[in-house]
Amino acid sequence: MPEQAIEAFDAVDIIRTKRDKGELSTAQIDWLIDAYTREYVGNEQMAALAMAILLNGMSRREIKDMTLAMIASGERMDFSGLGKRTVDKHSTGGVGDKITLPLMPLVASFGVAVPQLSGRGLGHTGGTLDKLESIPGWRANLTNDEMFAQLRDIGGVICAAGTGLAPADKRLYALRDVTGTVEAIPLIASSIMSKKIAEGTEALVLDVKFGSGAFMTDYAKAEELARTMVELGRDAGVATSALLTDMNVPLGRAIGNANEVQESFDVLAGGGPADIVELTVALAREMLSLVGQPDADVEEALKDGRAMDVWRKTVIAQGGDPDAALPTARESHTVTAEADGVLVRQEALPFGIAAWRLGAGRARATDPVLHASGIELHAKPGDTVAAGQPLFTLSADDDARFDRALDALDGAFEIAPPGTSFERGPLVANRIG
Amino acid sequence: MPEQAIEAFDAVDIIRTKRDKGELSTAQIDWLIDAYTREYVGNEQMAALAMAILLNGMSRREIKDMTLAMIASGERMDFSGLGKRTVDKHSTGGVGDKITLPLMPLVASFGVAVPQLSGRGLGHTGGTLDKLESIPGWRANLTNDEMFAQLRDIGGVICAAGTGLAPADKRLYALRDVTGTVEAIPLIASSIMSKKIAEGTEALVLDVKFGSGAFMTDYAKAEELARTMVELGRDAGVATSALLTDMNVPLGRAIGNANEVQESFDVLAGGGPADIVELTVALAREMLSLVGQPDADVEEALKDGRAMDVWRKTVIAQGGDPDAALPTARESHTVTAEADGVLVRQEALPFGIAAWRLGAGRARATDPVLHASGIELHAKPGDTVAAGQPLFTLSADDDARFDRALDALDGAFEIAPPGTSFERGPLVANRIG
Repeated sequence: MPEQAIEAFDAVDIIRTKRDKGELSTAQIDWLIDAYTREYVGNEQMAALAMAILLNGMSRREIKDMTLAMIASGERMDFSGLGKRTVDKHSTGGVGDKITLPLMPLVASFGVAVPQLSGRGLGHTGGTLDKLESIPGWRANLTNDEMFAQLRDIGGVICAAGTGLAPADKRLYALRDVTGTVEAIPLIASSIMSKKIAEGTEALVLDVKFGSGAFMTDYAKAEELARTMVELGRDAGVATSALLTDMNVPLGRAIGNANEVQESFDVLAGGGPADIVELTVALAREMLSLVGQPDADVEEALKDGRAMDVWRKTVIAQGGDPDAALPTARESHTVTAEADGVLVRQEALPFGIAAWRLGAGRARATDPVLHASGIELHAKPGDTVAAGQPLFTLSADDDARFDRALDALDGAFEIAPPGTSFERGPLVANRIG
Repeated sequence: MPEQAIEAFDAVDIIRTKRDKGELSTAQIDWLIDAYTREYVGNEQMAALAMAILLNGMSRREIKDMTLAMIASGERMDFSGLGKRTVDKHSTGGVGDKITLPLMPLVASFGVAVPQLSGRGLGHTGGTLDKLESIPGWRANLTNDEMFAQLRDIGGVICAAGTGLAPADKRLYALRDVTGTVEAIPLIASSIMSKKIAEGTEALVLDVKFGSGAFMTDYAKAEELARTMVELGRDAGVATSALLTDMNVPLGRAIGNANEVQESFDVLAGGGPADIVELTVALAREMLSLVGQPDADVEEALKDGRAMDVWRKTVIAQGGDPDAALPTARESHTVTAEADGVLVRQEALPFGIAAWRLGAGRARATDPVLHASGIELHAKPGDTVAAGQPLFTLSADDDARFDRALDALDGAFEIAPPGTSFERGPLVANRIG
């Protein structure tokens, strides 16, 4: 388009419409996302609009148009030539959430293609690619041909999404991060769904978190987000359902990178923490149901090594050594119980922040991640503990990081008097679909 | 400050606080404005914050802190060495508002210093400097020494504000223009008052417009803006009052640049349209009251040529020729009444937009202004007109501009049947002070 071409719409009019609680037309949204991709609409204009959307909302129709416009800003993948059904999972992100690692090989072991195009972490929630890069040699970047071949031959892949998918979303996602507009449901929903639909999956299960360690701390908002995304997926012809899962407490016992890979390995070996197994199994059942295998015995596939076989093949196919020792940290610091009692509180958000301060996460997109840094939880809520018993251990190469991590954990856990009864709500609180 | 210095606050935390309807601390606001001036806080962050402020508001304390922080971002002028009392006027901008031109010499003729640091127009409201540049040779840019000498020797000056005053406001003002955040009362109030307080005037009268041609179309919002600014001025030790004036109808009969200078000249010669005289006199009385001359006979100073004398001296001092012919346009187009009747509607906003499309205003800050373009109103609301009688005349060098200007005027005026009674509200609706 020539630089002097007359633009169909004016960004300021669009911002004012949303500012004044009006509804944007399909043509306005199409123009806006295209003009933003071309950098004709500036970041400062999109930031003002994002804040207006966060505060004034969008209709379902507007969210759908936004999603379709972001898909149209880039390329779309097509797995229809695979000869297999395809199903993907997306989590809105949590503390200790390594579920993708055991889940991908578990589902793929049933002859289904699982193209898990994943991201890196920013802030207190970890990134699947960062975790996997703890494995010596493993590489996240595959060509489309490599990805296709791996899905055909092994059935599963976890790799970086190509830069050609939904480029408008990539620009907007980075902008939201620095402008306090991450939490807008219309923007979260269209961001996630534009990427997932552009990836070309046939079916999609959403793991939408609520609670202190989730983007949406409030259950009702998480449910609204889940319903919005399920409708968006169906409108685009993708079989979509969602599980609403509790993120008030870290998932599993490991928070970090290498230690989360180790925990995933334990699950694939038939063990691992109960909550990780429970959520992995629930998501696997949901995914397999969407592609015609509602009765698949997923628990058996964890126990008999079929899922582990697929895991080992995918790690090797991506250059990694599944038997290599994972990095461990030079220094550690263990916090013990001050008194006998019952652990009644272990908040996800502060533990996520503490792991981040240990180096397991990044503050800026260009920062490196320290794969050996992390936290090991020795007790989980409901456990009876004795005075002096280890509650958790911080690990990092540099012990100067411990003080700031411990600051984050001030008040994050609580031991109630012995005999205090403790009951946690269900891990999977609801299903939308 | 070294680039790697740890910043006291985080822009995202500040944006989130305002997004969630919280109150920003004085220290947060001071840091924010300083960091924005240093370009550590980006335009995209300030745009998101500006939208949050527009939608969620600011407390009086926050607005005061914002104003003081913007003053502190630059230099402050000091007229205390003049040996005269100083008083300034600021209008929030309207269509046909050339009041500064007759007002400055009128008030200065009473021995008071009137430092009118003015701006250029953007959009449908004209700029005082643009109008004055119609006068051959006249220059807007004076050094501080020239300004001081002119105030001491003649008493009045209209010139461009130096770039050193409130630089944070300059950056924010340009940003608001492209992000749909112009209309936020806290931002309007702090923008205007930071510049005026930094200019060092002892007293200030605000002409706050309401109606279709004003930024604040709604009277209640205009009054809120006026009260906010009056309090800000007083808190900063500036004697401040405000008149709330009607901007539903263009002021006077001329809209443009050269024609507005001519109309101002007519007022200084003892004539001119009644509304221009009324508002000039009301503002002059208010200004002189604030500097100890409540009984000054301002009407007499217009009639006996004292104000005209000061006008001529200031034009000459700034390189202009007060007797030079003003530019006139090559082409004109007159619209006549289609039937006998009473003119009952003449809306300021469309007439402002029409004049802008004729070339009297600019769309971008770097565009030139066509001084000869404009509109002459032959009838005003309440006037009885006969079929075929001229209602208004458009003027421009290029007659291709008339069509788009006439488009803007579609439905902007109305002739009711003969004998229809018409009563307009008062031009000066209220006084705050």
